[in-house]
Amino acid sequence: MHCGLPTAVFYSIACCVASTLSFRFYGDKFDANTDLISVKVCLPFVTFAALNQGEQGFMINVTFPDGAVRQYEAGVSALDVAKSISEGLARKVLAASVNGQVWDATRPINEDATLKLLTWDDTDGKSTFWHSSAHLMAEAVETMFPGVKFWVGPAIDRGFYYDMDLGGKQIGEDDLKALEKKMNELAKQNNAYQRKEIAKAEAIKYFEEKGDEYKLDLLQNLNDGEITFYTQGQFTDLCRGPHIPTTGSIKAIKLMSIAGAYWKGDEKNKQLTRIYGITFPNQKELDEYLLMLEEAKKRDHRKLGKELSIYTMDDDVGQGLIMWLPNGTIIIEELEKLAKETEAEAGYKRVVTPHIAKESMYLTSGHLPYYADSMYPPMELEGEKYYLRSMNCPHHHKIFAAEPKSYRDLPYRVAEYGTVYRYEQSGELFGLMRVRCLHMNDAHIYCTKEQFAAEFKAVNDMYLKYFKIFGIDKYVMRLSLHSKEKLGVKYVNEPELWLETEALVRDVMTEAGIPFIEVQDEAAFYGPKIDVQIWSVIGREFTLATNQVDFSQGRSFKLQYTTQDNTSETPLIIHRAPLGTHERFIGFLLEHYAGKLPVWLAPLQVKILPISEKFIPYCQEVQRQLRKAGVRVEVDERNEKIGKKIREAELGKVPYMAVVGEREMAENKLGLRRQGKGDIGAQAVDEFLNMILEEIRERKSGE
Amino acid sequence: MHCGLPTAVFYSIACCVASTLSFRFYGDKFDANTDLISVKVCLPFVTFAALNQGEQGFMINVTFPDGAVRQYEAGVSALDVAKSISEGLARKVLAASVNGQVWDATRPINEDATLKLLTWDDTDGKSTFWHSSAHLMAEAVETMFPGVKFWVGPAIDRGFYYDMDLGGKQIGEDDLKALEKKMNELAKQNNAYQRKEIAKAEAIKYFEEKGDEYKLDLLQNLNDGEITFYTQGQFTDLCRGPHIPTTGSIKAIKLMSIAGAYWKGDEKNKQLTRIYGITFPNQKELDEYLLMLEEAKKRDHRKLGKELSIYTMDDDVGQGLIMWLPNGTIIIEELEKLAKETEAEAGYKRVVTPHIAKESMYLTSGHLPYYADSMYPPMELEGEKYYLRSMNCPHHHKIFAAEPKSYRDLPYRVAEYGTVYRYEQSGELFGLMRVRCLHMNDAHIYCTKEQFAAEFKAVNDMYLKYFKIFGIDKYVMRLSLHSKEKLGVKYVNEPELWLETEALVRDVMTEAGIPFIEVQDEAAFYGPKIDVQIWSVIGREFTLATNQVDFSQGRSFKLQYTTQDNTSETPLIIHRAPLGTHERFIGFLLEHYAGKLPVWLAPLQVKILPISEKFIPYCQEVQRQLRKAGVRVEVDERNEKIGKKIREAELGKVPYMAVVGEREMAENKLGLRRQGKGDIGAQAVDEFLNMILEEIRERKSGE
Repeated sequence: MHCGLPTAVFYSIACCVASTLSFRFYGDKFDANTDLISVKVCLPFVTFAALNQGEQGFMINVTFPDGAVRQYEAGVSALDVAKSISEGLARKVLAASVNGQVWDATRPINEDATLKLLTWDDTDGKSTFWHSSAHLMAEAVETMFPGVKFWVGPAIDRGFYYDMDLGGKQIGEDDLKALEKKMNELAKQNNAYQRKEIAKAEAIKYFEEKGDEYKLDLLQNLNDGEITFYTQGQFTDLCRGPHIPTTGSIKAIKLMSIAGAYWKGDEKNKQLTRIYGITFPNQKELDEYLLMLEEAKKRDHRKLGKELSIYTMDDDVGQGLIMWLPNGTIIIEELEKLAKETEAEAGYKRVVTPHIAKESMYLTSGHLPYYADSMYPPMELEGEKYYLRSMNCPHHHKIFAAEPKSYRDLPYRVAEYGTVYRYEQSGELFGLMRVRCLHMNDAHIYCTKEQFAAEFKAVNDMYLKYFKIFGIDKYVMRLSLHSKEKLGVKYVNEPELWLETEALVRDVMTEAGIPFIEVQDEAAFYGPKIDVQIWSVIGREFTLATNQVDFSQGRSFKLQYTTQDNTSETPLIIHRAPLGTHERFIGFLLEHYAGKLPVWLAPLQVKILPISEKFIPYCQEVQRQLRKAGVRVEVDERNEKIGKKIREAELGKVPYMAVVGEREMAENKLGLRRQGKGDIGAQAVDEFLNMILEEIRERKSGE
Repeated sequence: MHCGLPTAVFYSIACCVASTLSFRFYGDKFDANTDLISVKVCLPFVTFAALNQGEQGFMINVTFPDGAVRQYEAGVSALDVAKSISEGLARKVLAASVNGQVWDATRPINEDATLKLLTWDDTDGKSTFWHSSAHLMAEAVETMFPGVKFWVGPAIDRGFYYDMDLGGKQIGEDDLKALEKKMNELAKQNNAYQRKEIAKAEAIKYFEEKGDEYKLDLLQNLNDGEITFYTQGQFTDLCRGPHIPTTGSIKAIKLMSIAGAYWKGDEKNKQLTRIYGITFPNQKELDEYLLMLEEAKKRDHRKLGKELSIYTMDDDVGQGLIMWLPNGTIIIEELEKLAKETEAEAGYKRVVTPHIAKESMYLTSGHLPYYADSMYPPMELEGEKYYLRSMNCPHHHKIFAAEPKSYRDLPYRVAEYGTVYRYEQSGELFGLMRVRCLHMNDAHIYCTKEQFAAEFKAVNDMYLKYFKIFGIDKYVMRLSLHSKEKLGVKYVNEPELWLETEALVRDVMTEAGIPFIEVQDEAAFYGPKIDVQIWSVIGREFTLATNQVDFSQGRSFKLQYTTQDNTSETPLIIHRAPLGTHERFIGFLLEHYAGKLPVWLAPLQVKILPISEKFIPYCQEVQRQLRKAGVRVEVDERNEKIGKKIREAELGKVPYMAVVGEREMAENKLGLRRQGKGDIGAQAVDEFLNMILEEIRERKSGE
């Protein structure tokens, strides 16, 4: 199993890991599969000595997330605090957020602090758990392969890995099994993870004696006062931490795979051995996880996309440029139909605009300074530079500006099935998830400040409507904010407008009672946005849609409307794409439904299977009737056994099969089968037609 | 009025004009408007002396178009032949096609010949008539402005012009009137157009004496034996001819406009005066023509496109790149819906493919060698060249090739609303008629040779179906063939396959009884095609659609299907686009319907006009009912007089207006008006809804 991590990441990983900074390789948040994963990397080591040297014996104020403040003696640990609340809680605590930094739960707190206890339910709790598991694995490796030298061992989005130099020894599946066994033994010893501050000279001495050139290399970039060792059982590692209190919490262990990884990600360097693993606080969760992986493999959209003739790619067309086969096109068209209906009801107007525009447009919009890396290079023509568009917004702004607007025209909602082109590095391309040509149910809403809240909320409500249709039960809305440091570089340089619009969005979300989390430095270049994260039925996370506020482009494009008082104002703009891109959404749907699309989306809805040739005319007549009513139906006229016909229709994931023999023909009926469920009895043709038409009309998602 | 002719054309025009070689400025055949016209230019002068020197007194065989052969004495003229048939016919004869060359009807025929008498109903008859009219105008000009010098005076698609040097004199409308009068006088003199062969030296002497440097310039490129003078009345011109027998046939004259034109089209040269005119054999036709022009002005798609908010363009997006406003998008979507329904019934599958592809694809397809000039320049990316596509076919070939095909899969019909980009010179761009981004209801049919005839005919039948829907009564199918001389340059170099497929198409058309004409050197680079010419209701001609055979790309792309005998064959490919491009077709529809689109195409179908505020709730309820049924409806809620509301809805070309006052509300009715027709009485809401729904469903074209 080859690890798909880009080299730049390896290089920046230090030996120990604690931050939430995450690299996203495939889609804004999509984890393509288990060997294509996000990595949590170290923040720069911070000076913690000062924090650690407070005097004991006096009282400090500890503020909890709900705002409650309690007094504790200085030197109290998060674990102590948990115990003071309940033993049950204490057993769950894995780490703590102390004044916003993730700490060992056992580390003394010596001054007033805000405190959040971190458990398995917290991302940072999980991350600490997995990083500690990496140390546990290292201990097992060292026991079994003395002389091994370790490089870095971070937690990743799902589990952890450790890179190591086994001195040329090749290991295999059996070794993983043995290591798992050893890890389980060591975990049961319930050893504490012990933190020790150490002087640089002493640390160097330690690893020189051990002959460990890797850790010595890491030490080069560290200074006195920021170096710590962590020890559990017989294993000591240079590590910033934090770690969980004891190995005993690690109850279920699975080492997933072995890969090669160049030292520091440089292919000129030595190749190290990387072992990937994942651990859980109980066996049940591990079992579920492995089951999910198994499911995910079966549901892989690339595999299903091929089996069900959904899409294709071709080297002569280009990488990342999807060609939708007839079956895929039916899905696209059904999604479009849904969006058109929904948007027509919601008062959107539709437009059609070209895929290219001149350089001047993208200089005005700000795409060229801020988004140039994601655009295809220009075509030069008669002294002009034309760009393939990477977003639809500037064209829509031109539509707004084409005719004078007054307050009566607002909110002006413009929708388009826009196709955009984005220049993704070829190494980042992946199936339908990361592509270079994106079809998007895109729209822009031009409104007054007073209309903003209602419009923004209406868009969020539209998401929820879609989620219901597609059976998406788990989702999170993420308010993505700017970063002050990157104003003028990644974000338009309007510090006050940023704060103002961010507050505007926050207020709308709060007032509407929509749960959301806030994330720094993830906004669009022109304003804050809501990113919508959804989970497929097997628990994988996808970033789907965005709802963005734009205070910037309206001014750049000099968009104006006449107010009731006959003055001119610039509208606020909402950018929204509730179904995200067709590409990613259909990829999601294939996984979500395991290819068994609901009837309304299924490329072929009914397959009529005559038992023998003599029933073909009757089948054709039924086909005619169904087609006339708009049902997608085919007759399998081949001279094959009915068993084979059924088997192939099942594999093709056709929702309904209608078997026709003597009796069905005589009674003007169909012998019906539901895909994956077998025989569901005979029905009169009319009756079946009414049933399936209702299922289509209602867009029922059940199988 | 400025003449939009490109400079290159002026340069190549000689003083007299007779060929059918036509320049097309706006659209393959579309005549954008009267100042943007096609020009008939001279073929190289041919040696006719030989033809003219036959002996008289013996008999020659004259073969008529129907194959009949008659004997005449050598020296007989076409006019004599006509007289021998009937005096009535003779009065109509304007010129003659003798052995395929257009001649004076009065010129002696001295050897066996095929003969076609040309009248006003023949393109070459008209062209001769107009060229003779240019000479008549020149005679009038010379009478009124002695000392004038003439440059060239060709017939054009509609009428003629003559370029002249008036020695700095400015002329105006009054002069045109006076010239018309003078021309009428001269025409009534019924002078003969007399042809005279002349030696070069003599010709030079004549014009030297006249001090005419322009004709002397023309003479430079002519040789002895190919120089003729034509004289009518007092006017003599250097001219190849042919001309009509006498000026008396010119019964109705209109001089249209005056423009400036640089000598030889070079702006460094002197500016000459150009006078445009048109003539007819009777006043009625002239009146109709002027009426048509008046209508065409009102129906100008650019004017209507703006008034009805159909489309816009923007300098930041780029010239020729149409942005479809909401109203235009409704028309596009209705056309798409029609095409989708039609194609679904005809067994087409739909696909979606990207707008770009790599260079290798277009090298394979042949677009790069044969069509490069019409493509945008490449984008270079990671060492690859990507091109914006100018045709959809190669992507569709890749769709065909994506999965193995057998004879069972054929005919495989793939349709897409493809957008293509073509690099038109900026000077050639014109409204919706000549653009750089084209939306196309495009499809490709892959079939066996045996299936070809039925498929090709089915496509032609689809045209006819569409023509009926859009009320297109006049159309011509034109079989465009290759040119042997341009094999390997403009056409793939497969001489035998060209002949074979051209015969194939000819046979299909003949067998199906579809009338068509044949044109040389107009094929696609990969095979022969049928171009469909249609005429709008006011008699303007548009080239709409094509139906092309392709024997070449299937082989280039190595497309294969397995035959029933388990061998591999390359399919024939039909390229077809019955509605042409959205851009041109909607431009045509705007003119054809004068913006008064049939209800099914109208962006707004019903406008409800409350007489006062108190009827608004009722109007809104009616609106809700109509909208629910899918009707596009709005309520004019403004506090305006009903007269103004009606006037504006009329101007907006909304098919139905529903006036609502006390009585309508009380009786649950609507006071209906039909656009352009006024009051059509009150109707119950239900009744109206049923009526309009039927009108929409049936796509009725009547107003």
